[in-house]
This record gives sequence, C-alpha cells and structure tokens, in this order.
Amino acid sequence: MANQKPKKQELEKHEVEGAKEIGKRVYEIAENIVHQIEHEHTPTFSTKVRGLSNVYFDQDKGFIQLGDKTVTRPFLNLGAARKFMQTVLVTEKCNEYLKHSKTASIREIYYELKHTVAKTNENTFDGQEESNDVIVDIEHSVSTIREKLGLQADPKGSLYGDITLIDRKHNNDEFSCKNLGRGGWSIMSRIEPDEIEIKEVNADFVLVVETSAMYGRLIEENYPKKHNAILIGTSGQAARGARRLVHRLRYEFNLPIVVFTDGDPYGWYIYSVIKSGSMALAAHSKFLAVPDAKYVGMTLTDVEEYGLQAVTEKMKDGDVKRAKELMSYDWFKSPAWQKELKLAIDKKIRIEQQALANKSLDFVAKKYLPEKIDNEIFL
Amino acid sequence: MANQKPKKQELEKHEVEGAKEIGKRVYEIAENIVHQIEHEHTPTFSTKVRGLSNVYFDQDKGFIQLGDKTVTRPFLNLGAARKFMQTVLVTEKCNEYLKHSKTASIREIYYELKHTVAKTNENTFDGQEESNDVIVDIEHSVSTIREKLGLQADPKGSLYGDITLIDRKHNNDEFSCKNLGRGGWSIMSRIEPDEIEIKEVNADFVLVVETSAMYGRLIEENYPKKHNAILIGTSGQAARGARRLVHRLRYEFNLPIVVFTDGDPYGWYIYSVIKSGSMALAAHSKFLAVPDAKYVGMTLTDVEEYGLQAVTEKMKDGDVKRAKELMSYDWFKSPAWQKELKLAIDKKIRIEQQALANKSLDFVAKKYLPEKIDNEIFL
Repeated sequence: MANQKPKKQELEKHEVEGAKEIGKRVYEIAENIVHQIEHEHTPTFSTKVRGLSNVYFDQDKGFIQLGDKTVTRPFLNLGAARKFMQTVLVTEKCNEYLKHSKTASIREIYYELKHTVAKTNENTFDGQEESNDVIVDIEHSVSTIREKLGLQADPKGSLYGDITLIDRKHNNDEFSCKNLGRGGWSIMSRIEPDEIEIKEVNADFVLVVETSAMYGRLIEENYPKKHNAILIGTSGQAARGARRLVHRLRYEFNLPIVVFTDGDPYGWYIYSVIKSGSMALAAHSKFLAVPDAKYVGMTLTDVEEYGLQAVTEKMKDGDVKRAKELMSYDWFKSPAWQKELKLAIDKKIRIEQQALANKSLDFVAKKYLPEKIDNEIFL
Repeated sequence: MANQKPKKQELEKHEVEGAKEIGKRVYEIAENIVHQIEHEHTPTFSTKVRGLSNVYFDQDKGFIQLGDKTVTRPFLNLGAARKFMQTVLVTEKCNEYLKHSKTASIREIYYELKHTVAKTNENTFDGQEESNDVIVDIEHSVSTIREKLGLQADPKGSLYGDITLIDRKHNNDEFSCKNLGRGGWSIMSRIEPDEIEIKEVNADFVLVVETSAMYGRLIEENYPKKHNAILIGTSGQAARGARRLVHRLRYEFNLPIVVFTDGDPYGWYIYSVIKSGSMALAAHSKFLAVPDAKYVGMTLTDVEEYGLQAVTEKMKDGDVKRAKELMSYDWFKSPAWQKELKLAIDKKIRIEQQALANKSLDFVAKKYLPEKIDNEIFL
C-alpha cells in the first residue's frame, strides 16, 4: 500500500467558507441592529439556545448536535443590556479581524476590549469568561467556528508523517512533516482550509495518539514509515486544531482514523470527543467530529490477551463514576463497548499505553498495533 | 546584524559526553558491586545527598549546585535492600539502553521493570515515584543527566526561526525551523549533541516565551524574521528539552538569551529556573542553566510605562507568598528585582503578556519588545 496518494476531495461548504462569506454574516448582525434602531425598534441579537435542553445525539450523522431553539436578546432590558453591549463589541472586533486578515487568541480579544466605559465605573468585561461566552453566541449566530472568525484557542499537539502543508497566510511556507527529526510539527490552533492547505498526503491511515511519550516511542521505532501512517499526538484531550486536522484528513483525503489512548475512562472520552463531539461544542461537530473513527486500544481485553496483569493500575472512584456515564452515551451502546465498560467498572482497573513496555519497548510498534490494525480488531 | 552566522563553539566535556563514556561509568556501578561480592564485602551503592542540606547557590557560576556530600547504601540492611534491588534493576536497564542506542520514557522504564519478584508477593516497584527516585540517584552517581542515560521526560515546547537541526539518530533528518508555517518544530525531550546537531543558526538572540499564544502572536507578526530572533515557546514552565536547547544555543552559539513571561511570580519563576536552575535539579544546572539570561518583561513598571492599568489582574494570596519567597533568592537580590517584587507584594497585582493586546494586537511585536530589547531595558 506504500506510496499511494489519497485523492483530495471537496469539503462541504460550511467547512471551506472563508473570511468573505463569514464576514458578510457578521456584518449583518450590525446591519440588523442599525435597521432596528432606525425604525425605532428595540435592537435585538439572536443566537442558539445552549445547554442540555437543546443538545441531542444525531443518530444519522453519528455525532452530537445543537438543536434549532433560538433565543433573542433585547438591548432595552436591564438583565440583557450588559451582554448586548459585549456582543456588539466582540462582533465589531471580529468584523475588523476578518476585514484585515488578523487573528487573535481568545485571551487577546478579551484584553483588547477590556476598558472602563467612559463616564462610568463599569468595565466592558470583568473576566475572560464573559468574552468567551459572547464568542460562543456569535459562533452560533453566524453558524461557524471561532477559527473562521479569526479567533483561536491555545495550540497543542504534534504532527508527523508523509504529509505536505502550505501555510497560505505565512509566506506560503510549504513543508513536509516527514523529515522533522523525532519532534514533528507543532500543530497550530487554526487549521482552516483557506490558511493551511493540505497539499499532499502519502498514507494509508491516521493514528491519533493520546500521550506525547507514546507519540515519541512510535516515531523512534519508525512506525509511521513502516506502516504508512500519519501520526498525530494530542498530549491528552485533543485541542481544537488537532481535531480539525483529524477531521480534514478524514473528509478531504478519505483516510481512516484510528485512535489509540490509555485504557481508562479519560482515554475513552478522548476517543469519544474525536468521534462524536462534545456537549460543550455541540454546534461544531460538523467541523470537528469523525463518527467512523476506530478505537484500537487500550482495552481491558488487551490485559488478558497480552498478559499485562502485572502492570494495570487501580481506578479511582471518579474514574468508575465516569465509566458509568460513558455506558449511558448513545455512541457507546454497542455490545462490545458495553462489555468493555462493565469490565472496567467490575474490575476497577485501568491500563496505560506505556504499560506495553512491560513486554518490550518496541512491542507496541512491532506487535500490538500491527496485529490489531491489520486485523481490524477495533472496539 | 541580519544574516550573521554565530560561530559554533566547543561545549564543555560533560555536555558532549555520549553513550560510550557514560556507559562506562554505569557499568562501573555493577563492576563495583560484583567486586564487593567476590571479596565478601557488603555490596554498596554511592550517590549524592539530595535535599536542602546539600544544595547551594554558586555565586561564581551564578546557578544552583548540588554539593559534594555523598551517601552510601548497603545491600544488607533491611531499610535499604529494596532500594538497592531497584537501583540494580534500573542500572542494568540503562546499561542496555546505552549499549543498544535505545531510549525510553521514565514511565516506560517503570513499566518495563515492574513485576512480582519470583516466589514472593513483592513487586519490584509499587509506583513510578520509586523508579523516578532511583533514576535521580543514578544520574547523580555517574554525574550526568537522564537524557544521556537514554531516558526522557515528556516533551513540551516549540521552536521557530532560522535554525537548522540534524537528527543524527533518525535518518540524519536535516531541517530548518524557519519555513514551518506558523506552527514551528515540536521540541523533543532529548536534545543531546550526539543526537540533535545544531548545524547552523542565523540569529542575533533567542527569545524564550512563556505562553503558546504569545509565541503564535510573534510568529504571526513576523517578529523572528524582522528582528533576527530564534523563538522558543515553553507553554508554561520550560521542559527539560526546551531548557537544554536554550542552554546549548547560549554556549554553543554564544547567543544572548532573553526571557519573556507573564508579570507574576509564576512567570518570574520560569525565568528563574531558566537562568539559575532549580533546587530539584540542582545537580543539572551545568547542563541546563543560563546565568546571564536577561529578563525583558512583563514587569509592574511596564504597567505605568505603557498605561496598562485597566488590564492588570489581582494576585492571589499564594502569589503574594511566592513573590516573598522570590525576594529571598540570591539571584533576585539586585535592587531592581527587589523593587519589582516589593511593588508586586504592595500592589497585589499581576500583568500578563497578552494584556499588551489592550494597546493593539501588534503592539508587542512592533513597539514593546523592540523598544525594550534594542535599548537593553532588562530587569
């Protein structure tokens, strides 16, 4: 299978939209307010209702979605006026970013906009949670993600393998991630198609790995080259940039996504978020989720299969509680997952990726992963 | 100053030692034990005493050091036998790693060696803290760092700029970190000269940045190129790999090191560790510390100077306590630092790097840093 080049595919419209289309919708928020004022109506701002009452699991799509319930906030209301003012401020900034191709971290936009309102003692924002909240409102209002509004979270994660990227917004830098020593590329927070073009990929699949130590181990063993894999290390819960990259590799290059985490509720939840999204980002699943992602391990069945009994760890009470929660999720309802989760709850043990070192350092690269992936032994 | 190439310099012997020299000293631990057994003496293992009683600040060198006090542990002692057994196990593994050019994370070596001792109920290790402890003993015993024993901690941090590296242990990959888009290179955990060669650097100085968001901001503004700087983002407290890289750039290429953190005790401590080392790694300062590193900001004086009063944050009680501790450190005894720390304690405020966005997003790259660095306004 070596050296095949997956053909590039078209992404859906919402994924490739750039500053122009989204800027137009952001501008419309302001136009609408101006229109209302000119017609002596109360200015209003509409966005989606958040929280459990408007979140559901979409069986057809296989991921968590935000429903259609909307909320309209009037300016002339004592409880809503402050938030309205904040919304206008952030909307204006996003408009400016999009117009001038600027970007800012969500902490920077908070600091940019923080000041005391003239002739009052009132601060525009009293903490970053206030501006964060408004950013989500605007994302939902214009049906996009913050990255397309010029905003970004902290980057995290590394990329390694035969993949060539072009940074369209930075000197058109073109670089491959296959000859970067054992470090790889630091994944940016914004991986939008109009900024980061994925020019070429030579790989059979993408392996997403929870711990940076395991990511390092697999490169050290030359696993990506030998098995024609792209490697993404998430260093714990996957950041938005890493998730967006995984999603794009799945849909833009039709590559299978295989997830490899510790065998515990925390690791399984990392898989869950990559696969089906999360409640908190329910509106963004269509940008981030990969419903047909496969889970290779670690599993409690592995403990028996590979004789790892001596290197399991005890689960804490919180972990057991978390495992019970996972059992109730729609996308963990398969008999295999229910069995696995019940095993974890009964035995109260967990098994880490690195515990495979108990066999030998190269066991994971030479036996465990090839055996399971080649034979498609997925959960 | 653009495009000068700093000349490569010789590092001190302890820094360039490779597997051969260190492997010899590791082997001597075992030879010594065998010799003792053959002569019917109690086998012993000697290492340095750790803890405050053997740690001091070396005024001449400008960094924290571990003193000469040693401790010798006999095997035939009920309290020491278990640790002796563990020391022999880890020593043997390190010998194997060095002999076969293998490396392992400190969690992997724990798992590799964890088993139940035959015919007993005794585990070799009951938790990773036990193997970690023994690793430090061996580091001290053979006067080196774990990275040279084939061991590594988790990697963290990113590198950006006109610097070319060669990974001698991985296909001799040669790559520059100046055209990697806005992400940069994920810094490995082991940056030893016999593995990672720094082939060429075109830069006037190295800027070490605390937050990944500020690292991204400076690349976005093209700061490294415009100011001929190498950028290292530490994402909080600098990991060992990042510190080793900073140290090598200082001594191998004679580059000035400038540190840029949040203006609070946590940020100042990041600077402190880069500059003078830490109590916990007192023995390793000669591999990691950079006593003439400069601190550019943030400072509480900046708050006045640049009119940032609206974007300071309150310090918590713990921060105030930490600031008082910093005041007592030898390397914070300069009048300027004492004044700064007193100001923080009196005003109980802190100022973040990203708060500079209150002026404008590019203020940090176009005004703040150039003004302070060009005029050498350092603390």
